[in-house]
Amino acid sequence: MSVKKIGVLTSGGDAPGMNAAIRSVVRAALKNDMQVLGVRDGYTGLIKGDLVDMGIRSVSDIIQRGGTYLYTARCPEFREWEGVLKAKAVCEKVGMDGLVVIGGDGSFRGAADLSKAGIPCVGIPGTIDNDIACTDYTIGYDTAMNTTIEMVDKLRDTAQSHDRCSVVEVMGRRAGYIALNAGIACGATYIVVPEIGLDMDAMLNKIKAAKALGKRYFIIMVAEGIGHVDEIAERIEKETGIESRSTVLGHVQRGGSPTVTDRVVASQMGFHAVELLKQGIGNRVVAQKAGKIVDFDIQEALSMKKDFPMDLYNIANDISF
Amino acid sequence: MSVKKIGVLTSGGDAPGMNAAIRSVVRAALKNDMQVLGVRDGYTGLIKGDLVDMGIRSVSDIIQRGGTYLYTARCPEFREWEGVLKAKAVCEKVGMDGLVVIGGDGSFRGAADLSKAGIPCVGIPGTIDNDIACTDYTIGYDTAMNTTIEMVDKLRDTAQSHDRCSVVEVMGRRAGYIALNAGIACGATYIVVPEIGLDMDAMLNKIKAAKALGKRYFIIMVAEGIGHVDEIAERIEKETGIESRSTVLGHVQRGGSPTVTDRVVASQMGFHAVELLKQGIGNRVVAQKAGKIVDFDIQEALSMKKDFPMDLYNIANDISF
Amino acid sequence: MSVKKIGVLTSGGDAPGMNAAIRSVVRAALKNDMQVLGVRDGYTGLIKGDLVDMGIRSVSDIIQRGGTYLYTARCPEFREWEGVLKAKAVCEKVGMDGLVVIGGDGSFRGAADLSKAGIPCVGIPGTIDNDIACTDYTIGYDTAMNTTIEMVDKLRDTAQSHDRCSVVEVMGRRAGYIALNAGIACGATYIVVPEIGLDMDAMLNKIKAAKALGKRYFIIMVAEGIGHVDEIAERIEKETGIESRSTVLGHVQRGGSPTVTDRVVASQMGFHAVELLKQGIGNRVVAQKAGKIVDFDIQEALSMKKDFPMDLYNIANDISF
Amino acid sequence: MSVKKIGVLTSGGDAPGMNAAIRSVVRAALKNDMQVLGVRDGYTGLIKGDLVDMGIRSVSDIIQRGGTYLYTARCPEFREWEGVLKAKAVCEKVGMDGLVVIGGDGSFRGAADLSKAGIPCVGIPGTIDNDIACTDYTIGYDTAMNTTIEMVDKLRDTAQSHDRCSVVEVMGRRAGYIALNAGIACGATYIVVPEIGLDMDAMLNKIKAAKALGKRYFIIMVAEGIGHVDEIAERIEKETGIESRSTVLGHVQRGGSPTVTDRVVASQMGFHAVELLKQGIGNRVVAQKAGKIVDFDIQEALSMKKDFPMDLYNIANDISF
Repeated sequence: MSVKKIGVLTSGGDAPGMNAAIRSVVRAALKNDMQVLGVRDGYTGLIKGDLVDMGIRSVSDIIQRGGTYLYTARCPEFREWEGVLKAKAVCEKVGMDGLVVIGGDGSFRGAADLSKAGIPCVGIPGTIDNDIACTDYTIGYDTAMNTTIEMVDKLRDTAQSHDRCSVVEVMGRRAGYIALNAGIACGATYIVVPEIGLDMDAMLNKIKAAKALGKRYFIIMVAEGIGHVDEIAERIEKETGIESRSTVLGHVQRGGSPTVTDRVVASQMGFHAVELLKQGIGNRVVAQKAGKIVDFDIQEALSMKKDFPMDLYNIANDISF
Repeated sequence: MSVKKIGVLTSGGDAPGMNAAIRSVVRAALKNDMQVLGVRDGYTGLIKGDLVDMGIRSVSDIIQRGGTYLYTARCPEFREWEGVLKAKAVCEKVGMDGLVVIGGDGSFRGAADLSKAGIPCVGIPGTIDNDIACTDYTIGYDTAMNTTIEMVDKLRDTAQSHDRCSVVEVMGRRAGYIALNAGIACGATYIVVPEIGLDMDAMLNKIKAAKALGKRYFIIMVAEGIGHVDEIAERIEKETGIESRSTVLGHVQRGGSPTVTDRVVASQMGFHAVELLKQGIGNRVVAQKAGKIVDFDIQEALSMKKDFPMDLYNIANDISF
Repeated sequence: MSVKKIGVLTSGGDAPGMNAAIRSVVRAALKNDMQVLGVRDGYTGLIKGDLVDMGIRSVSDIIQRGGTYLYTARCPEFREWEGVLKAKAVCEKVGMDGLVVIGGDGSFRGAADLSKAGIPCVGIPGTIDNDIACTDYTIGYDTAMNTTIEMVDKLRDTAQSHDRCSVVEVMGRRAGYIALNAGIACGATYIVVPEIGLDMDAMLNKIKAAKALGKRYFIIMVAEGIGHVDEIAERIEKETGIESRSTVLGHVQRGGSPTVTDRVVASQMGFHAVELLKQGIGNRVVAQKAGKIVDFDIQEALSMKKDFPMDLYNIANDISF
Repeated sequence: MSVKKIGVLTSGGDAPGMNAAIRSVVRAALKNDMQVLGVRDGYTGLIKGDLVDMGIRSVSDIIQRGGTYLYTARCPEFREWEGVLKAKAVCEKVGMDGLVVIGGDGSFRGAADLSKAGIPCVGIPGTIDNDIACTDYTIGYDTAMNTTIEMVDKLRDTAQSHDRCSVVEVMGRRAGYIALNAGIACGATYIVVPEIGLDMDAMLNKIKAAKALGKRYFIIMVAEGIGHVDEIAERIEKETGIESRSTVLGHVQRGGSPTVTDRVVASQMGFHAVELLKQGIGNRVVAQKAGKIVDFDIQEALSMKKDFPMDLYNIANDISF
């Protein structure tokens, strides 16, 4: 099967580096004499036929931009088979015989369905949360972590000036990767992740132990969804006497110019996705494993489990006093 | 009167550039053959006698750091005359015959009291809020605004990718300067400041007008203390159909390495404060007016009113569609 | 005279904030029911008729971007009266009865000529060098200075780790404003500006004095055009025994997302330029004096002299040991 | 053998993240009831006995700082066996029975020698150049690359505004890793690395091809030591007619607050080094391979060869038009 025209879309939450992935898909496809259609607003745009021809200059000057140039949206309609068939009809009408889907697990389910319907789809993991089991790395993760520590390094200045405890909620959508790594990077006295849960006594004891060792200000890093950081701050203040303040970093973590890692990995993954589609191979998700770019069957990928790096968590705990 | 030994303290909320001011005070005083004592934790430390000798190397490598190297704290005790007298006694004991106080209005009241008690004090305006009437500029303001727009520029990426409205609460402590200037700088569709108040209908109409002109994503900048940004976001979503998200930027705005303006103005103000104390002049606050460094009687300064720049607010409104 | 259609162009070296000025001109003009043409590549594009209709969405999402969206170029042809008449003919052909020129002194000379030829032109000072006499501030200056200190703060890390002297050349085009302010902001031991010249002995003595006071690493800030920084570094190493390294920061200082000040002042100046053209007033240059936005006759502006702030230079010298 | 007291030093060029490694070594050793001595100025300080006791608070507030808190220096004396024996004598005198050396290949040779002399030493790869064969990652590399792209993204603004070609020299010390990855990340039209060399015709043809495809501005990324970027820029301007400018980024790339990756990997490696020394194991170098922290015999490590990632280079070439 010879693929002549492919589409590319971004789906789910946006992540820095998605533009670098789009650019790589477009450029690699053109290099292989394929045509490329940009699909706006994710699967919603695919069903509607909101498509735009992508030329070599369409993706100029976007590698350094956060967000996604093609827009993104959730699409409940695509969870139904009828929605998938509508999308398939659009693909057939415009001659799109392959699709790259940049997004998270939910987006890959859609890609699997559309592949089954006859349009080969390849997924690229794009989410700041790094919560996709088949891959060591998801596009946007490195930028989100670095944005996080830039903000926490600012909180550090004010916490230090006032001898305070700063309780910070970071993103992660039920995954503690951002909290763990940003927590280590900021020298957080305690890190709360969903994979372990909040052990209030352990946290308070750690803070008290650090205080006893002369520590004057404290950073507590909390993954979202664990508990209210203002309540945690109140509890710390009450139990330790250390003035405490909470901050929810929020959506700021989703934006910003992508880091080198996000731009390079996105470029590699986009290139790899086109290599697959060129051969007519669909129902795959691109991944990074042990530093190499590989790919998996989507169903297989979705059934994998990701281990939480307990050794790293323990190191964090040992060196943060 | 010949001043031989002065103190320097930071008081109230910390602000980027306070370290540059401390450095300038210390270096200028040493240059004038005065000795300098650093007072830790603001007036609290003064009453306690928590003092440290400052040499020329004590302030090396701090000009670029946020926060305050001398720590800061609120001191309710200093609002009583008895506290002031305790501080005076400490000054006399260590031979401190002058004091530089870096902080806000509340800190200046203390400086006026201590001046009245016989220790000449000079205030330097240090607060991110720019809410001190006698001066066009307060140390920390420029850094806080730039931190704000860096964060909002990241929110912009995600708002744009999702066609959302991003409602952002910024600091200001009853003053709209940060919201106004950062709002213009981010192209905010609407800016809510305490000097004018929240006109919900005007805001909604502005958003609808911009949407009618083809605008796809929106930033609303709200000064703290006006209303809950999550409620404002809900209202916008309900009335306009635009998906809306709220973010409270919070204490991140207080930290970070100071900008050129904050470092330079802090250096000038610190230098000027020493020039005053050198001549035994106290009960003054240093200010920047129309680009020049001047000084005012503290009581006079505290009684001034600051006009809100309505012309700038109107420009913002006219060009943000 | 009623102005119905204006043009806007950027000329000379690019500067961060030019896009904010373009945006403000376009939005303010549309608000006043004028039409706006964007002129590409400065006067070169005007002569060629390289014009583009500007709508309210044309300037969306550019306020935060460095460089100039309309491109810029030097135009030797415009220095001849014949070139000016060609431009005038283009203006008349398309009904452009007013022009905003964002650039430096050279660009304003062109604006004066075209005004004389019958097309009212208003200049906006846009250059990172702050070397325009009539105004306290030029668009791009604040961003360039902050970019400079961000880079020098990184050089500081490595100079400090190795006990080195870092000799840094910064931009300025025959003006020492960037060197002076960035020099103060970085705690430079010595600042070399064209307004004063390089006094090698004074510099070496200052470094030796600082070293005698225990200073271990040194930053020397040199404005471009004074001398080769590698030769200065060699001389310092030879005379003081301090290992020295030179860096030319170069064009990096011209780019980057503009600061709050650059975005806000650019917005004010663009608005003011349209206010003038609306009334048919040309041959003016917009300026900021003592915090207010004003305007001057172009010839008058070009004949002004700018005083170098010797008091600030002296403060720098006194506190940097 | 039971190790009771270890030393830690940084050697060779400084790199962001060295402080995070020092902090981790100190904290992990204290956690294991060892004492820690900080050695200043690398091997030079070891020979001189310039040692400082490190407590848990000695390494507070340094994880986020660039450079090295313990200073670094080259030490020709340590290349002689006599120097090694002097260092050994100092170690024995103070009871230092283990040493962590953070640096590059040259520093590891010293660590091997001192291990042979009887003081177990463990090396940690710290250099921005990523030019150590045994490890996928060296501390400082990620920060240096991100600093590079931040600067090149600024150059992009001005290159774009003027339709120019920007020829940028980046660091790497005979290795092209920074140039390659930063080049991909910046969308460089052509990347020149020492592993391949400069093929002037290939470069010019690539630029001409991109120009023919409508590209208006160009970035050429050149690793140091390949050729003079000003000459390359002149040649490009002459052969293609595109106005070209050169920039040498220089030592700015060595400094700055470390990224998440540098802080986390440094923390892991420091922890691992202490685990080895705790067991009396020396003559090892810590490394990251396929995402895992491992260690190698120093001689074995020094004899390894690092393959240049040609596949990544080819991707870069394919997608940058």
